[in-house]
Amino acid sequence: SRSIRLAVVPGDGIGPEVVAEGLKVLEAVAPAHDLKFEQTAYDLGAARWHRTGETLPDSVLAELRDQDVILLGAIGDPTVPSGTLERGLLLRARFELDHYVNLRPVKLFPGVATPLAGVTPDDIDMIVVREGTESLYAGTGGVLRKGTPHEIATQESVNTAHGVERVIRYAFEVAANRPRRKLTLVHKDNVLTYAGELYQRILKQVGAEFPQVGTDYVHVDAATMFFVTQPQRFDVVVTDNLFGDIITDIGAAIAGGIGLAASGNLNPSGAAPSMFEPVHGSAPDIAGQAKADPTATILSVAMLLDHVGAPAAARAVEAAVAADLTERAGLGARATSQIGDAIAKRVAG
Amino acid sequence: SRSIRLAVVPGDGIGPEVVAEGLKVLEAVAPAHDLKFEQTAYDLGAARWHRTGETLPDSVLAELRDQDVILLGAIGDPTVPSGTLERGLLLRARFELDHYVNLRPVKLFPGVATPLAGVTPDDIDMIVVREGTESLYAGTGGVLRKGTPHEIATQESVNTAHGVERVIRYAFEVAANRPRRKLTLVHKDNVLTYAGELYQRILKQVGAEFPQVGTDYVHVDAATMFFVTQPQRFDVVVTDNLFGDIITDIGAAIAGGIGLAASGNLNPSGAAPSMFEPVHGSAPDIAGQAKADPTATILSVAMLLDHVGAPAAARAVEAAVAADLTERAGLGARATSQIGDAIAKRVAG
Ligand SMILES: CC(C)[C@H](C(=O)O)[C@@H](O)C(=O)O
Ligand SMILES: CC(C)[C@H](C(=O)O)[C@@H](O)C(=O)O
Repeated sequence: SRSIRLAVVPGDGIGPEVVAEGLKVLEAVAPAHDLKFEQTAYDLGAARWHRTGETLPDSVLAELRDQDVILLGAIGDPTVPSGTLERGLLLRARFELDHYVNLRPVKLFPGVATPLAGVTPDDIDMIVVREGTESLYAGTGGVLRKGTPHEIATQESVNTAHGVERVIRYAFEVAANRPRRKLTLVHKDNVLTYAGELYQRILKQVGAEFPQVGTDYVHVDAATMFFVTQPQRFDVVVTDNLFGDIITDIGAAIAGGIGLAASGNLNPSGAAPSMFEPVHGSAPDIAGQAKADPTATILSVAMLLDHVGAPAAARAVEAAVAADLTERAGLGARATSQIGDAIAKRVAG
Repeated sequence: SRSIRLAVVPGDGIGPEVVAEGLKVLEAVAPAHDLKFEQTAYDLGAARWHRTGETLPDSVLAELRDQDVILLGAIGDPTVPSGTLERGLLLRARFELDHYVNLRPVKLFPGVATPLAGVTPDDIDMIVVREGTESLYAGTGGVLRKGTPHEIATQESVNTAHGVERVIRYAFEVAANRPRRKLTLVHKDNVLTYAGELYQRILKQVGAEFPQVGTDYVHVDAATMFFVTQPQRFDVVVTDNLFGDIITDIGAAIAGGIGLAASGNLNPSGAAPSMFEPVHGSAPDIAGQAKADPTATILSVAMLLDHVGAPAAARAVEAAVAADLTERAGLGARATSQIGDAIAKRVAG
């Protein structure tokens, strides 16, 4: 059987709970597909920061680089200053491992309730390709005259031809392989004229190589509206890091909630391991109560399986999730582990 | 009767059509409230740019400064490079006239269809206080090595204690005068750590003067989700220029569409005239077809009336709109001017 080195970063809050269920399903599906995951768990997050002051030490980063793939739960805790773990751990991992594609499917499964009236699964089936290593997430900026009436705080959005070209190319490849073959650029080029023009120009350039893919452009403000009023409008969406962060949360909302939204931080070049994680955060308010829905993590495991070249296993996990979702409405509340058990049983059976 | 100097900027696309209806209603309501509007129309927008290359010339800006208040339709046209009119005219007006509060009510009127299932007018009643003169809208940034594989495009978000303090103070004042007295800061302080920390710190400082107002904080990505899943969560929202742009479009979507969303660009100091405009754009695809809904402009006129110290007239316009909205569902499509006529008749009657 094929052996795959898997780094596991459970993280904070509900992270460990949902990751446990993701791993349960992974273990259940692996044997039938002749896969073996050699797991190494990494203790990163709020507890480690409190103990040692470390977020993502260089030595751990070096170990992560040696793995084939990473599964992450959630990062963030109210006892740690906002941004410390996000910037020092989660974003550091995304940047250092050059996860330039943050892939976020927005898909309404049959049986799942959406807050939108009169919308069916056929109406919501898109993939957001969010840039993962640039824009306002660069973290550059600073503060001048802090604490005075003349204080200035800046943040810089950094966008490069290199970064924009590779993510747009990836999005075209995704679009070319879907039936509708439609790619929508979401930006705000009427205000962010420098960055917006770069995205538009490269969309056109790369688009010339993909004549079979239709393209259009929507301002980010209008896009958020269309997610709510006309989700059918979208097939593949490509956008920058910040806009992608925002629109994928609305995407999660319309597709049945953050408990179902999966994501992959990809380095498609293969030069470093990709990292899979649910879109939701650490949800400290419900941590330790067995209330968290592990489905987003389990669907992230399906994306992970696709990434390691096991599409049949990925489809098996997705089918098990789909089957579970159609039954959920009738079941009443289940504990985190009960949902994991049910899905693991389906993939194994 | 009291005389008020009103600058009218119809602008592009559907702008002139909806502004005509806004003025119709204004003229209809004015006499009974002893108001007289001395109108001056300003020819600004795509046509002028094509003719003269001008967006907002200094001479026109000087004239606008001399007016009491401004009514604007919409700016933007596909025949003009993206950003030219937005930055050169609309944003220039907002910045030069120091419109530091961009006030955007999000309110579901009875009888209006919302795309959200099971939501009633009681659930959607908030006011977004969007900062109007800073953040990424500053327009600073640039391009290096354009057209080469090493191109870099930057945009800078500029935030000042001065700018943040005054908009947060305004938001507290709004919140203190509403029954729920709740103020939510929306930002992304775990990624935009410099700007986010400034907003958080000033929220706390100014909040000490408003102990009767409860405050909380929501990341912008989560806020867009909550607009869709729990709009009841929000009473008054304060946020930066870019996040405000985005969340108020979702606000418009959930409250019945962009055809109903009003806004005011306020300079509460009174040092320059405030400017009222519908949130929607110029919608060139439907321009000239009498299809545009003038209601957003008419509700912006109500905000204008409040601003010039005529609250009774403002309430009369709102009541006429509310009455019209409850009847709409049964009426079938009406032309832009028919909607204006119906509302004007109600306020006059
Ligand atoms: C936790 C936070 C830094 C992160 C982001 O902004 O990217 C999260 O919101 C996400 O979408 O993965
Ligand atoms: C037209 C555009 C520059 C403007 C903005 O981004 O502020 C618009 O979207 C708005 O919300 O008023």
